[in-house]
Amino acid sequence: MSEQSPFDLPEGDPFGPHTLPYGVFSTAQAPAVRRLGVRFGRYVLDLSALPEPLRPAHAEVLAAPTLNPLLAAGRPVWAQVRAAVRTALTDPAHRSAVAPLLHPLDDVTLHLPFDVADYVDFYASEHHATNVGKIFRPDGAALPPNWKHLPIGYHGRAGTVVVSGTPVVRPRGQRKAPADTAPTFGPSGRLDIEAEVGFVVGAPSTLHEPVALESFREHVFGVCLVNDWSARDIQAWEYVPLGPFLGKSFATSVSAWITPLDAFDDARTAPPARDFPLLPYLDDADAEPGGIDLRIEVRINGETVSRPPFASMYWTAAQQLAHMTVNGASLRTGDLYASGTVSGPEPDQRGCLLELTEGKGPFLQDGDEVTLTAWAPGPNGARIGLGEVTGRILPAPATP
Amino acid sequence: MSEQSPFDLPEGDPFGPHTLPYGVFSTAQAPAVRRLGVRFGRYVLDLSALPEPLRPAHAEVLAAPTLNPLLAAGRPVWAQVRAAVRTALTDPAHRSAVAPLLHPLDDVTLHLPFDVADYVDFYASEHHATNVGKIFRPDGAALPPNWKHLPIGYHGRAGTVVVSGTPVVRPRGQRKAPADTAPTFGPSGRLDIEAEVGFVVGAPSTLHEPVALESFREHVFGVCLVNDWSARDIQAWEYVPLGPFLGKSFATSVSAWITPLDAFDDARTAPPARDFPLLPYLDDADAEPGGIDLRIEVRINGETVSRPPFASMYWTAAQQLAHMTVNGASLRTGDLYASGTVSGPEPDQRGCLLELTEGKGPFLQDGDEVTLTAWAPGPNGARIGLGEVTGRILPAPATP
Repeated sequence: MSEQSPFDLPEGDPFGPHTLPYGVFSTAQAPAVRRLGVRFGRYVLDLSALPEPLRPAHAEVLAAPTLNPLLAAGRPVWAQVRAAVRTALTDPAHRSAVAPLLHPLDDVTLHLPFDVADYVDFYASEHHATNVGKIFRPDGAALPPNWKHLPIGYHGRAGTVVVSGTPVVRPRGQRKAPADTAPTFGPSGRLDIEAEVGFVVGAPSTLHEPVALESFREHVFGVCLVNDWSARDIQAWEYVPLGPFLGKSFATSVSAWITPLDAFDDARTAPPARDFPLLPYLDDADAEPGGIDLRIEVRINGETVSRPPFASMYWTAAQQLAHMTVNGASLRTGDLYASGTVSGPEPDQRGCLLELTEGKGPFLQDGDEVTLTAWAPGPNGARIGLGEVTGRILPAPATP
Repeated sequence: MSEQSPFDLPEGDPFGPHTLPYGVFSTAQAPAVRRLGVRFGRYVLDLSALPEPLRPAHAEVLAAPTLNPLLAAGRPVWAQVRAAVRTALTDPAHRSAVAPLLHPLDDVTLHLPFDVADYVDFYASEHHATNVGKIFRPDGAALPPNWKHLPIGYHGRAGTVVVSGTPVVRPRGQRKAPADTAPTFGPSGRLDIEAEVGFVVGAPSTLHEPVALESFREHVFGVCLVNDWSARDIQAWEYVPLGPFLGKSFATSVSAWITPLDAFDDARTAPPARDFPLLPYLDDADAEPGGIDLRIEVRINGETVSRPPFASMYWTAAQQLAHMTVNGASLRTGDLYASGTVSGPEPDQRGCLLELTEGKGPFLQDGDEVTLTAWAPGPNGARIGLGEVTGRILPAPATP
């Protein structure tokens, strides 16, 4: 049986010529050398070595060990590089030159693809916010009064964003159940996932200059999956009044692959109807459809537990960007912002175990492996994949 | 009248041989070249050009345009460099060699002295938390139930940390007074300061390995002043349930000078008595005194409005570091964490206008200039100064 050519993808492969996500890899031969790559099927194209005439203008940004220089280069360069890569992978005239640059995915090590500047996490699913509000604040309104007027968000810890595949050690911390008289210290007993979609900022913005809704594509480079691991017992005790801190900051896992925003042009969809009029800086009634029809799948130990629909999110990524900068805060290359847990209206569309089990658990056990995958419709029935996010739970450290 | 020698400091100068803070400067002759400097009186010693035999081992970390390589080098190198600098500035044998390296402070431009990795803001003054709790939550308990069990903190925006002297543009955003039926958009009408003390992490830590109380000095390099500018109206509307976001993220000002932790050895003081037993990872009853007797002064347009005593803080910087990492979160070189507003028990010791005016204002007006200064007792009656933090309020941008 002859080996299949790397250029011939199986029908329906979500990493075909309309996807072309970027990542950073090293090989067993040169484990200390990090190179930019583009995923194509089950192969990685080495971008650091594109020969003439395939080398795009500004190819110097492809020689770095992280995506940051490419991210900073801005939209015209993103388009040039993407066109060059697509030509390299689809024009049969280049096959003999390109074939030596293709590494089997199974032979490379993937790294965190960019240096994260600031990390912001939003709370943009009405279904999630409602479900969680009922569990955390059973005596109050499920949605806080501000929820439909602004996309609620907060800053998370950029230094503990890790690439897919990194094991997650069960965090320890303070917990206090309502019946306890004092907090106790120990491993989290309510370790959870949050299935989210992340947006990676490329072009920076200027301090004091808000980024308008319509400038979204000038600044945001691409999309990834995010698992915002959450220790619910630690979070519940600490989060009033200044928000989540140690219940989240131990690890946030992201895809090894960042899929360019342009890959989702065929998946654009209108967000849900708004229940309240929005202030002008958030009003997207006349803007291009701000939603993305991404279908997420959550698997635990290989078993599908949920299929959250990203199209159901109340707030869009463009609205989140406009909100995040409306006070004059600037963007830096490598800023990452995540959607918040994606939950749809159905019980099997919830993006975290807190919701899936209605607060009762079971939560994650040591040894559990969680994998998020997602795809969106592309042109002519193609599927546009996001890089998976996977992580296995390791036991908490022994005392102390 | 002859000019005073840079080596002869006025009596009581808080930037004498026991202080020696680090910063980054450029000169009018070479405005694009950033160099490390040490402040001595009204002069800056150019560290990039120390001649033999004054050059310390590892002098390569002094050739960078930011403090980060020195921060990362760790405590033994910090001690070597500090000793070399003190010798250079105090041993008369070196005066002729050192004099050409001293630039008048008024002739240089000071820059943000380090690249900020993650920024965390705590809430460690019992007086502040109590005063604010009464204003923001008049119907509830002033202190939340977790307050005396853990140092409450949250992540802020690292990308908008700016150096002293940077103007602060009044932010715009959503505000909604309780009597309003819907939020409105516009310039903050309740722009405030928060006088805080910041701690700069030098040596990084390993993911999954908490940093114990007694390892504080191995990781924390130095201290600065922080003005955590706050838009109270934006904050009040947005902060439930996930904490402050746009009410803080438009600007956080820090000193141009980072004073090494060792400079405060004579200012160590015990924190207030604890009202509840602390969990072991926070219990500092048998540790070295964790407080610092820093006396802060807040001036608005030259008039002193408050003198917050840092010694009154309930939670210490060592406890904050232990808490921040107890879940396994790692530290990076350049992490900055701030104490939270410093307020003492007296009405003229409150560290923000919200407290000073009991919620009624007036708050900051366009054109107001706010300056924070601080000093601590040093050896033999010397004063150890922190670099001032100053900033002037500029008007909000015109619509849109």
